[in-house]
Amino acid sequence: MSTLNPPELAEKVTSHGFSKAAGVRIAHLEPGKVELILPRRDDLLQFAGHFHGGVIAALADQAAGIAVTSKLPQGKIGVTVEFKVNFLASADGDEIIARAEAIQVGGTIGVATIEVFTKNENSERRCAFGTATMRAVDLPKAFS
Amino acid sequence: MSTLNPPELAEKVTSHGFSKAAGVRIAHLEPGKVELILPRRDDLLQFAGHFHGGVIAALADQAAGIAVTSKLPQGKIGVTVEFKVNFLASADGDEIIARAEAIQVGGTIGVATIEVFTKNENSERRCAFGTATMRAVDLPKAFS
Amino acid sequence: MSTLNPPELAEKVTSHGFSKAAGVRIAHLEPGKVELILPRRDDLLQFAGHFHGGVIAALADQAAGIAVTSKLPQGKIGVTVEFKVNFLASADGDEIIARAEAIQVGGTIGVATIEVFTKNENSERRCAFGTATMRAVDLPKAFS
Amino acid sequence: MSTLNPPELAEKVTSHGFSKAAGVRIAHLEPGKVELILPRRDDLLQFAGHFHGGVIAALADQAAGIAVTSKLPQGKIGVTVEFKVNFLASADGDEIIARAEAIQVGGTIGVATIEVFTKNENSERRCAFGTATMRAVDLPKAFS
Repeated sequence: MSTLNPPELAEKVTSHGFSKAAGVRIAHLEPGKVELILPRRDDLLQFAGHFHGGVIAALADQAAGIAVTSKLPQGKIGVTVEFKVNFLASADGDEIIARAEAIQVGGTIGVATIEVFTKNENSERRCAFGTATMRAVDLPKAFS
Repeated sequence: MSTLNPPELAEKVTSHGFSKAAGVRIAHLEPGKVELILPRRDDLLQFAGHFHGGVIAALADQAAGIAVTSKLPQGKIGVTVEFKVNFLASADGDEIIARAEAIQVGGTIGVATIEVFTKNENSERRCAFGTATMRAVDLPKAFS
Repeated sequence: MSTLNPPELAEKVTSHGFSKAAGVRIAHLEPGKVELILPRRDDLLQFAGHFHGGVIAALADQAAGIAVTSKLPQGKIGVTVEFKVNFLASADGDEIIARAEAIQVGGTIGVATIEVFTKNENSERRCAFGTATMRAVDLPKAFS
Repeated sequence: MSTLNPPELAEKVTSHGFSKAAGVRIAHLEPGKVELILPRRDDLLQFAGHFHGGVIAALADQAAGIAVTSKLPQGKIGVTVEFKVNFLASADGDEIIARAEAIQVGGTIGVATIEVFTKNENSERRCAFGTATMRAVDLPKAFS
């Protein structure tokens, strides 16, 4: 039986592997909603010097997973069945911010929408919009 | 006017930013088709020790972009309008391989499908399937 | 040169083919936003007696097209590049309502999100969520 | 306990509601694969006289459901979690043909890809490509 509450679990997930290496940070978490921030770094960009579409997608995916998981019973975690991202503007800011919201969570399936913003000193604009479908699975032992 | 042919351009795109840092390698390229390989590394994984869904998506996106770009006139490059990935199995292998194919390329829009495989010493199985829509834009000066 | 304004064009598109035969009605239209209603009828259902997923998708697609077109220059119409729908609940109401919003419209590409609701006498709940990518093309002569 | 085998179930699903009214016909069915045909009719078109994108999506969705269901245990049916369609060419033929293939079927989730072709007397070309995610549910009593 897991004893991790949603914020602890989100923190643990975010401090692993790609997410930790990239520098993803949880800015806000409430049941069904999360905001993740990822500061610009050269190894996160594409050929034109903007955040790489795959990195934007990775942040969106991670945010969707945390948003859905925060509405699941303790001991469960959402793993991605599929996700889809539309890119709306160049992510040329100093950081990107993904805001995910779980719009439906049932027994086995959860769905989240994600808005991603690119932020400079003076402005913030939406650069991507996504949808993700998650499946609830038992947390691995190491996480409970 | 660009003087880079498709293999040179693919090489140049892959040796930048996230793609270079992650270790993406072009294994095969022909007009409309590309195979990319990404070896396992701790900073590419998620909480359970498999390739991170976002990293898989990033590789798929990059493959789609190269496949579509290889069918565009020289001087043009495909940038992602949207992409969608279904995850079919845990990507727990020593490397992942993305095989993209441009299934339609018109004046401004190109579409590619991508299969991603997870490969161990003895086996290879499909772990993801995606579709990407690309838009043709002029190559940045630095790339022509 | 088209002389149809957005409401006239939306009306014309809706009074054709599938849309007319199915009984789609425009409930509201403002620049970038539209609400379409489709009342229940036996030939719009699936095996279990709910609205057919394809019919829900058709309504969502049509709404997205009208929302994006309403932000394009006169003489242009949005045709669907791709769309994606998540089904969130059984569409078992007396009618379905699609509310689309254009979240980005550029020179050649527009993107809309669509919420679909199933409505009974006493309640309304979201049954689907979608995203659509449109491409601006010249209106056929018959429509200008 | 259902006594319907996959072809009987596919037939039953196809002879209901929208699918029956539109005139959908099963041309081929084997485990994991199905081909559906829909002949042109005025009430299936959009403003420009081609098959309506929503109708193409409906046929793709139906094909995906049958392909996945044919790989499920008897007594189960696949209902759509989400689907995504890219439109590749005008569907201006005398009929459209959807060929779906289940690419992964697990305990609760199945995924199918769908190619849709537009066919004239002398030619056939791909006009759409889609992916669908299905969830296995118990067949309604009326169907077992």
